[in-house]
Order: sequence, then structure tokens, then C-alpha cells
Amino acid sequence: MIAEIISIGTELLHGDIVDTNSAYLAEKLTGCGIDVHYISTVGDNKQRLYKTLQQAVERADLIITTGGLGPTMDDLTREAISEITTCPLVMRPDLVIDIEGYFNHKRTTMTPNNLKQSYLPEGAIPINNPVGTAPGILLEKDNYIIISLPGVPREMKIMFEESVLPYIKKKNNLMIISKELHFIGIGESTLETKLEDIMDSMNPSLALLAGDGEVKLKITGKGRTKKKIENKISEIVKTVRNRVGEYIYGEDETSLPDEIGKLLSKRGVTIALAESCTGGLIGARITDIPGSSAYFKGGVIAYSNEVKINHLGVNKNTINKEGAVSPETAAEMASGVRQRLEADIGLSVTGIAGPEGGTDEKPVGLVYVGLAGIDGEVKTYKLNFKGDRNKNRWLTTQSAFYYLYRYLKFSFK
Amino acid sequence: MIAEIISIGTELLHGDIVDTNSAYLAEKLTGCGIDVHYISTVGDNKQRLYKTLQQAVERADLIITTGGLGPTMDDLTREAISEITTCPLVMRPDLVIDIEGYFNHKRTTMTPNNLKQSYLPEGAIPINNPVGTAPGILLEKDNYIIISLPGVPREMKIMFEESVLPYIKKKNNLMIISKELHFIGIGESTLETKLEDIMDSMNPSLALLAGDGEVKLKITGKGRTKKKIENKISEIVKTVRNRVGEYIYGEDETSLPDEIGKLLSKRGVTIALAESCTGGLIGARITDIPGSSAYFKGGVIAYSNEVKINHLGVNKNTINKEGAVSPETAAEMASGVRQRLEADIGLSVTGIAGPEGGTDEKPVGLVYVGLAGIDGEVKTYKLNFKGDRNKNRWLTTQSAFYYLYRYLKFSFK
Repeated sequence: MIAEIISIGTELLHGDIVDTNSAYLAEKLTGCGIDVHYISTVGDNKQRLYKTLQQAVERADLIITTGGLGPTMDDLTREAISEITTCPLVMRPDLVIDIEGYFNHKRTTMTPNNLKQSYLPEGAIPINNPVGTAPGILLEKDNYIIISLPGVPREMKIMFEESVLPYIKKKNNLMIISKELHFIGIGESTLETKLEDIMDSMNPSLALLAGDGEVKLKITGKGRTKKKIENKISEIVKTVRNRVGEYIYGEDETSLPDEIGKLLSKRGVTIALAESCTGGLIGARITDIPGSSAYFKGGVIAYSNEVKINHLGVNKNTINKEGAVSPETAAEMASGVRQRLEADIGLSVTGIAGPEGGTDEKPVGLVYVGLAGIDGEVKTYKLNFKGDRNKNRWLTTQSAFYYLYRYLKFSFK
Repeated sequence: MIAEIISIGTELLHGDIVDTNSAYLAEKLTGCGIDVHYISTVGDNKQRLYKTLQQAVERADLIITTGGLGPTMDDLTREAISEITTCPLVMRPDLVIDIEGYFNHKRTTMTPNNLKQSYLPEGAIPINNPVGTAPGILLEKDNYIIISLPGVPREMKIMFEESVLPYIKKKNNLMIISKELHFIGIGESTLETKLEDIMDSMNPSLALLAGDGEVKLKITGKGRTKKKIENKISEIVKTVRNRVGEYIYGEDETSLPDEIGKLLSKRGVTIALAESCTGGLIGARITDIPGSSAYFKGGVIAYSNEVKINHLGVNKNTINKEGAVSPETAAEMASGVRQRLEADIGLSVTGIAGPEGGTDEKPVGLVYVGLAGIDGEVKTYKLNFKGDRNKNRWLTTQSAFYYLYRYLKFSFK
């Protein structure tokens, strides 16, 4: 089955918003074994919308549109589909009731233009919209299927998951299964070299995705039976784990803070943070995880030297002699926060995020991470980043998590 | 001038990555007064890429492609342009030198396939790539211009800004100027009602963009002279400021932490944070701003009650009697951090982010913000959010910034 995705809305052609709907739909369709050949974006312009739809029904089996289903004059999707499919728009009394019900429930007044949304091309099946007024459209013709969803991502996604996905799965019985392996502490090119001989494998296929200071390997298999595809994927995973297993920190939907949370819970220990250049970002990422209060005590954002001295117990002489950005300060911060917040583990970072504050000796991007373990012993790590402020701060959190993860995973007695 | 944007790459059709390049280019082109009629995405497939390009040169004056310029066999953009324009590919000795130079500089070995990137369609001008090996292509034909840029956003953006934008501005002399007003403390629909009579204005046009707990108004004017457009925009801005000026916190590229930073600097005062449910996210956002060390002392991430008591001086009885999520605790947290970190202002948040931890009396989404002013007086604010954990945490930071901003702007003596 060949699919085409069409995003409708002038705001997309102005670049006011990024079209995330298409990537979402493309991923879901690919996951069902459907080949997406084209993604098109077109504005709220009658003529160009017709042309784009006409072309799509000629070259694809399944056309999914998003946007242009609202009640205003700009919303042209309904009319365009009616025209292209030669199915006249007819009012659906059941939809009138739904739309009136929606406004009653919200206790707001319905304006007459909302009734436009109760018209569908003849023969179309309305797709229920549990979170808005615009119903979707599903229309089967001899050679193609058109599905129209609203442009608001939240509405589109709920309707796709609840109604469209089950329908498509029935129509198309080729299955695609993917598995993701998450790596930390190894670069994309090194990984590619180590896996060179299997990277070209066709089924399952392998793809490396790098970004945000880590690398993912996506393994995708196609077939008719789940069992067979999963077996093929397992074989690849086994090969990869044999070669570079020590750099894999997780599979599928996960993140470093997620895996660290699991390890801390499993070992029944708590952690506290002392953050300088990250200003709270490590804490924000740790507490992103629901239930993190079980192992996260809290932290000190020690942005000024006073706070480092008064609230973490860093020695004034250490800062004067070695500087606030030094392994010695990082070590005292980690020890200090561990003791003062009565945690089992203390993690600290101090560095120069930029753009100001760098010197020849201590350039922008220099960062020290301190890790005080459960026995009180402290290790420090030196890092040199080359990014801008944002990137340096993010990579600092990634590195801190990396050392913490390895400590919890491998060095913990 | 009518433009079309084409994104090339199978990874886009799989939904592995979201196409942010097109929105970036669309915004820049719109800003130059160029109408973008279509955005298309096509995979690394010869036949479909040719068709898409052929169609584009027939209906647009300016075609910008991204992706498919790399050295591998999958990269087909160069060949496709050569075919469509009937300009044969010729090797450019100057580009060979550039590419060899790039590898020498990086001290890595050049593989022969990299030389593919030294071939350009005859008559094309290479676009310098300061951060990678793939040069871009600029080819002027009688009826259209094709510009090809790499798909890596960082490379694409630098090349667009440095080389393409100046070229396009010369070619097209209609000007578009935009101004953005940032609102906080007023909802999209209220704002729309208050501006109803001017929302339909054509030139300048007005658009409301809501998201992330705030609303933006984008005012866009078109014309031939800068002065005239700016005057028209100024009139609209004046009208808007007269009606809803108190909710405007900034113009154009800015953010709440940015404006708060400016106010703190201007007034020469410092701030400290006591964060519970946000776990460091407020600090992370404040320290996103370069130079924030001038006014940000630091903070305490008081995730556990122990930390609230021992490191912020919250009274144990307050927590036992009123609970950790209460106006009383928020007030003591704000006072405590202000005193202990010797800051002029203390800002605190405590709440239930979810998904667990809610009760009938104190449901998920209940948050208290505490603000201890320069005179030591404390105010607290109650909030009820209805989102998931992520959204509740983000909206908590937005609200805390809102109260802080209003304090600094209006109540400060």
C-alpha cells in the first residue's frame, strides 16, 4: 500500500509553525508496513489544494490529510474532497446532534458556521473527534482511500490512534516492528565502524540516529508474522550487544534519567545534586520522571561562590586557589551536597557554559563533574565542550548522567 | 515571486525526523515577501525526485531543496537537477581543492566518494559551506532559479543566511516586516475578543499564536519601503497597547526569563529560588540567559520535606499541619531561601505535578507560588492546572515567572 500525506494550512507555508503532524503520521504508517512516497504541504487556497489532492489520488492508495476541517471560510478540505471524489456534500443529522452536544457540554454558544462541520461527502464515514467539534472524514473509493483529520496535533493524534489506526491495520496486513537501542559514551562514527558489516542489512534494516549527546540504533523488520520478525530482530540485537553492549543503556522508549531512576530504586539509594553551570537543569531532568521523589532528595543550585561556600561547605581557599571551575571545587561540591542533604550519592557540576567567562587557561566549555559515591569516595571528570551555551549545558547534563549511570551499573559494590 | 520548498530524504518519509528545515525556509522566504505555494517531501528515489522537481520548475519561480547532497549513492539531488535543467555535471577543480582542504584541516582521510561533491551542473554557482563538505548549488535558468542546500539543519542555516538570503533579497524587492508582541496573564480567546475589530486587517495582518502557557500576536506588513511598513505596524501596536498593554511583557525575540533578567539587572537586585515540584526547571530557565550570574544567586531544590526543613528553614509543624503543598509552606520556602542565600528576592514553588500524589482535597495540578519581596514581605498564589506532569511543571514555571515579572514591573518601590 502506497500512502501520501497532505498538510493543509497557510500558516505552514509561512513557517509560523513546524509541521509535526506529517512526521507522526509517516512514522505510524511506516510502522504498519505502508510506504509513504510523498508528503505535501499546501495553503488554504482552493485551486492549489484541488491540484494537490487530484495528484495524490492518482498516485497513492491511501491519502491522509490534516487541517482545513474547521468552521471558517478558510477551511476548504471538505469541499475539495467532495469535488475530487464527485461525492456531493450532504448534511448529516447525527453530526448536527454531536456538534450541538459539544457546545452544550462546554456551556458556550454555537455559532451557525459550526454547522458547516456536519456536512460530509456522500458515502463518507465520519471519524469521531472526542476532543473537538470537527469530525474527520473517511471515504473509500474504488482505487483509493481518503482520510481527513483536523490539524490540531492533539485532536489529530487521538482520532488517528482511536479510529484510523485500527482501520488501516485491517486493510493492510504487512507488519513492521522496530526496536531502538540507546547508546551513551560512544560516537556515531565509531559505532558505525564497529557495525559496518551489518549496517547494510535489508530486513531487518539498521539506522543510526545521533543527536542530543547520544546515539540511537533503530532496527526495523518487515514480514507477515510477528514471531518471525521478532526473531530476526533479536539476532541483530544479540550481535550488537556482543560487540558494543557496554555502551547500551536502554531499549525503546527510555532516557538516561529514566534508567538512572530504575537503578537508584533497585539499589535503594538516594541522590542529591550540586549544580553550578547547569543551574537546575539536571534536577529538572531527574524530576521529569514520575516517582522520582523516591530517590531524589533535592539539590543546591550553587550559581554564586557564596552559595558554594555557605551551602555546600566548599572551602573558600579551594575556590581562591583552584577556582570555582576546578576538579577540587567539583569534588567538594559533590561531597558537600551528599553530606548536607543526607543522601547516599552526591553529584556535582561546575563549568563555563559561555558565551562569556572563558580564559585561555579555562575556556568556554570546560566542565568538571564530581561524583561522591555511597562510601563517600569522590571521583571527578574533566570535559571540554565546543558548543554554544545551550549545547554546553545540555551536554553537561548528559555527561553527568553518563558517569552516574556507569557508577550505578558497574562500580557499585 | 513564487517559491516551492522540497525536502529530500527517505528518513523524512519514515517519520524518523521532523522536517524543521522547511518551516525555517518558509519563514525566511515569507519574510522576504516571497509567496511559498507548496512544500513537498520526497525520498531518496530517483524517479519520484525527478517528478517532484519537474513539477516545481513548472509552477514556481524559485525552488529551494534541502538534502541529498552528500557523497553516498543515496544522494541524488545533484543528478536530478542536472537532468531537469539539462545542464551536464562537470567537475569543478576549485571545489576539489576545498573538499581536500576540509579533510586536511580535520586531519581525517578523504574517501574517493567525497569527490562526487565537486561535481556541479554546468553554469551553476557553488554555495560555500563553511561547516561541512557538501557545497550548495545555485542555478539560474530563464524561468526559474534552483537552490540546493544540505539537509543538516546547522549547515543549511549557515549557508542560507550567509549566501542565499543576500542573493534572494537582491532578486526580490517586495519587503515584509513582522513584529511580535508577547502576552502573559491573558488567554487567547479573551485577547481575540478585545482585538476583534482589527484582527481581520489585511496589511498589516494580525495572527494570534498560543502555546507553552503564553500568547503571541504577530503583526506582518508588506510594502516597498521600510518606513511605510513600520509606520503601519506602529499604529497597530499603539492600538493593541492601549487596549491590553498591561499583559504585554516583551516584543520580538524574547522570553519571560529574558525580561525578568533585564528588570533584575536594571533594579540591581538579586534572586534565589526554592523549587519543589519543578525540581530545578525554574533555575534551568533563568540560567538559560547568558549573564544571569549577575542577578541569580542560586537555589535549593527542596524535593523532600527534610530539605525543606533543614535547608530552607521551613517549620516542621507547618508541614505537619498544613502539608508540603500549602500557601504556608510556599511562604516559608520563599522567605527561607531569600534569607539563607542572602538574596533580595526569594521565589518558591510547591505543588503536585502528578501523575501520582493527588487527593480529593489536594488534586494533581495544585501548585502554590511564594514570592518574598525586597522588604521581606511574602505573597502566595494558588494555581490549579489540568495537564499532565510535563505540562503542569512547565505551567508552574510560567506562572512563577508571571508573578515575579509583575512584582518587578509594577509593585517594586
